[in-house]
Amino acid sequence: MAERQRDALQFPEFERDFLEPHLPPKYRADDETRRTFTTLTFATSLDSSLALLPGTQTLLSGPQSKAMTHYLRSRHQAILVGVGTAIADDPSLNCRIEGVGGYGGEGLEGQPRPVVLDPTLRWDFSSDSKVLALAAYGKGRAPYIICAKHPPDQKRVLLEHLGGKFITLNISDTGPSKGKLDWADILQALRDHGIQSVMIEGGGTVINDLLQPHYAALIGSVIVTIAPTWLGQSGVIVSPPRRWSADGTPIPAARLKDVKWHPFGEDVVLCGKLQ
Amino acid sequence: MAERQRDALQFPEFERDFLEPHLPPKYRADDETRRTFTTLTFATSLDSSLALLPGTQTLLSGPQSKAMTHYLRSRHQAILVGVGTAIADDPSLNCRIEGVGGYGGEGLEGQPRPVVLDPTLRWDFSSDSKVLALAAYGKGRAPYIICAKHPPDQKRVLLEHLGGKFITLNISDTGPSKGKLDWADILQALRDHGIQSVMIEGGGTVINDLLQPHYAALIGSVIVTIAPTWLGQSGVIVSPPRRWSADGTPIPAARLKDVKWHPFGEDVVLCGKLQ
Ligand SMILES: NC(=O)c1ccc[n+]([C@@H]2O[C@H](COP(=O)([O-])OP(=O)(O)OC[C@H]3O[C@@H](n4cnc5c(N)ncnc54)[C@H](OP(=O)(O)O)[C@@H]3O)[C@@H](O)[C@H]2O)c1
Ligand SMILES: NC(=O)c1ccc[n+]([C@@H]2O[C@H](COP(=O)([O-])OP(=O)(O)OC[C@H]3O[C@@H](n4cnc5c(N)ncnc54)[C@H](OP(=O)(O)O)[C@@H]3O)[C@@H](O)[C@H]2O)c1
Repeated sequence: MAERQRDALQFPEFERDFLEPHLPPKYRADDETRRTFTTLTFATSLDSSLALLPGTQTLLSGPQSKAMTHYLRSRHQAILVGVGTAIADDPSLNCRIEGVGGYGGEGLEGQPRPVVLDPTLRWDFSSDSKVLALAAYGKGRAPYIICAKHPPDQKRVLLEHLGGKFITLNISDTGPSKGKLDWADILQALRDHGIQSVMIEGGGTVINDLLQPHYAALIGSVIVTIAPTWLGQSGVIVSPPRRWSADGTPIPAARLKDVKWHPFGEDVVLCGKLQ
Repeated sequence: MAERQRDALQFPEFERDFLEPHLPPKYRADDETRRTFTTLTFATSLDSSLALLPGTQTLLSGPQSKAMTHYLRSRHQAILVGVGTAIADDPSLNCRIEGVGGYGGEGLEGQPRPVVLDPTLRWDFSSDSKVLALAAYGKGRAPYIICAKHPPDQKRVLLEHLGGKFITLNISDTGPSKGKLDWADILQALRDHGIQSVMIEGGGTVINDLLQPHYAALIGSVIVTIAPTWLGQSGVIVSPPRRWSADGTPIPAARLKDVKWHPFGEDVVLCGKLQ
C-alpha cells in the first residue's frame, strides 16, 4: 500500500463487525447462479427527511457515519442513485476508504461502479461532473447510466472513453412498474454486466419505490442512518405509499425484521431485512 | 405491597439506568422556586408517523417500550395530551407499573395527573371515558382539563366529583402563540396546581408546536421511541414547521444534544435535550 492518503477515510476494524451480517456474501467471481445482492441504504433525519428541500443536498450524518458509508461502498461492486440525486448533488459516488484504489490501493481495486438511473437522459453530465472527473483521475470508476432511450453520440463517447457506458432497457408496460423501469430488469441488467452486489443510496423517489411490498424480495439488506435532528416540513421524505388491507383499513407500508440498532456517534444505524 | 396484580406491567431495574439522567430531578414537595420540569415523549415509525391516519390510534412500539412509557409516567406528576388524542384514542392516561397505586401500591401513590389541553371544550367525555372510569375505580387520577372558555356545569360536576377540574386560561393575543394558549402559561398553571413535572405525550399538533425553537427552553428532556416500520404516507406526522436562516436558506428545524440511543427490543429509544 502506498503512503497514507490525506483525503482517505478510516473506518475502524471493531466497528465493522456489526455490519458484517448485513453485507453481500463473498461470491466467487465466476459464480453465475446468484442474483445481484441489493442493499438499500440512506441517511435520514428523525422526520424521515433526506434533504431540506427537493433538489438540494443536506449534510445529515456525522463523520463516523460518512466513513461507514464509504466502507459499505467498498463492500459492493456498484452504487446506484436516481437521476434526481445525480442532478441535485453532483455526487462523487466513489469510495474513499483508505486502502482502496486511488486512496492508497492499487488500480481501481475496491472502487464500486457508479450507476445512475436516468430513463429519459435528463442528467446533462460533462467531464467536469464529479463522478467523471474522479474517474479521469483514477480515483473512481466511470458511471453506467441505465436509460430507456437512445443516448446521444457525444455523451456516449465521453462516457465510454472513461470506461463507463449506457445500458438501455425497456419501459414496463404492465404491473406495478408500468411506465417505469422494472427493478427486476434493472438488477438483471447489472448482473449481465458482471455486478454481483449493488448498494442503492437514493434518493427519495428510488427509496419509496423500493420499500413497496412488490419489491421486498429483491432487497437483501436495509441500512438506515438516523441523525438526531428534525429537518422540518417539506423536505425530501422517505415514506412509501400507504397500504390498505383487503377490508379497506390502513396497514403499515413496510417493516424490518432481524433488526439491529447500532448507536454511532450522535447517530444510530439500523440494519434489517424487509419483511 | 398487595399481591401481584394481573394487569400490572414490569420494567426491570437494570433498564431504568439509561433513563435516569433524562428524568425530572426529585424536588422537595415544598420547593416553590423550580419551574415545572417538562419531558416530551412519543413513539414514531421510521417515517415519523404517530398513527396510520388522523383520528386513529396505532400500536407502534413493542411490549418493552410500552412498559417503559408506564415507568416514565410513574416518574412524572402529570401527563399531558392534546384534545385530538383524547378524542381519537379514548386514552387511559394512568400508570400501570407494578407497585403504583391501583396496581399493588397504596392509594394513588405514583399515579400521574392526566391533563388534557382542550381550549374550546371539544372533548365530550362521560363517566364511561377510560380516564374517568379508571379514576372511579381508584386506578388513576381524574383529569385536569385546560381550556379557554367557561365549562358547562354538568361536566364540571362530573369531573370535580372524581377529583378532576377545569383550568381556564386566556388565549394569547401576541407572539408565536397568538390565537392559542401559550405553553409558558400552561406550565405555570400546572405549577400553580402543585405539579412539578409533566410528561407531554402528544399528539402530532402538540409535539410539532413544542419542537419549535421558541419553546425549546421550556422542555427539559425529549424521549422518542422509534419502531422499525414505515407506516406510509398520510399518517399523523411529527415534523416541525420549516425554519429559514436570515438570508433565506432553509435550516434544520430542531436538533437534540446530549444524545443517547438505547436499543430496546425491536425499537430504539432516543433521549436528548433540545438545542
Ligand atoms: N440522505 C441521503 O442518504 C440521500 C441519498 C441520496 C439522495 N439524497 C437526496 O435525495 C434528493 C433526490 O431525490 P429525488 O427523489 O428527487 O430523486 P432520485 O430518487 O434520486 O431520482 C428519481 C428519478 O429517478 C428515476 N427513477 C426512479 N425510479 C425509477 C424507475 N423504477 N424507473 C425509471 N426511472 C426511475 C426517475 O427519473 P425521471 O423523472 O427522469 O423518470 C425519477 O424521477 C436530493 O435532494 C438528494 O440530496 C439524499
Ligand atoms: N404514537 C404516539 O406516541 C402518540 C401519542 C399521542 C397521540 N398519538 C396520536 O396522535 C393523533 C392525535 O394528534 P392530533 O395532532 O390530531 O391532536 P393533538 O396534538 O392530541 O391535539 C391537538 C389539539 O390540541 C389543542 N392544542 C394543541 N396545542 C395547543 C395550544 N398551544 N393552545 C391551545 N390548544 C392547543 C388544539 O385543540 P383545538 O383544535 O380545539 O384548538 C389542537 O387541535 C392520534 O391519532 C393519536 O393516536 C400518538
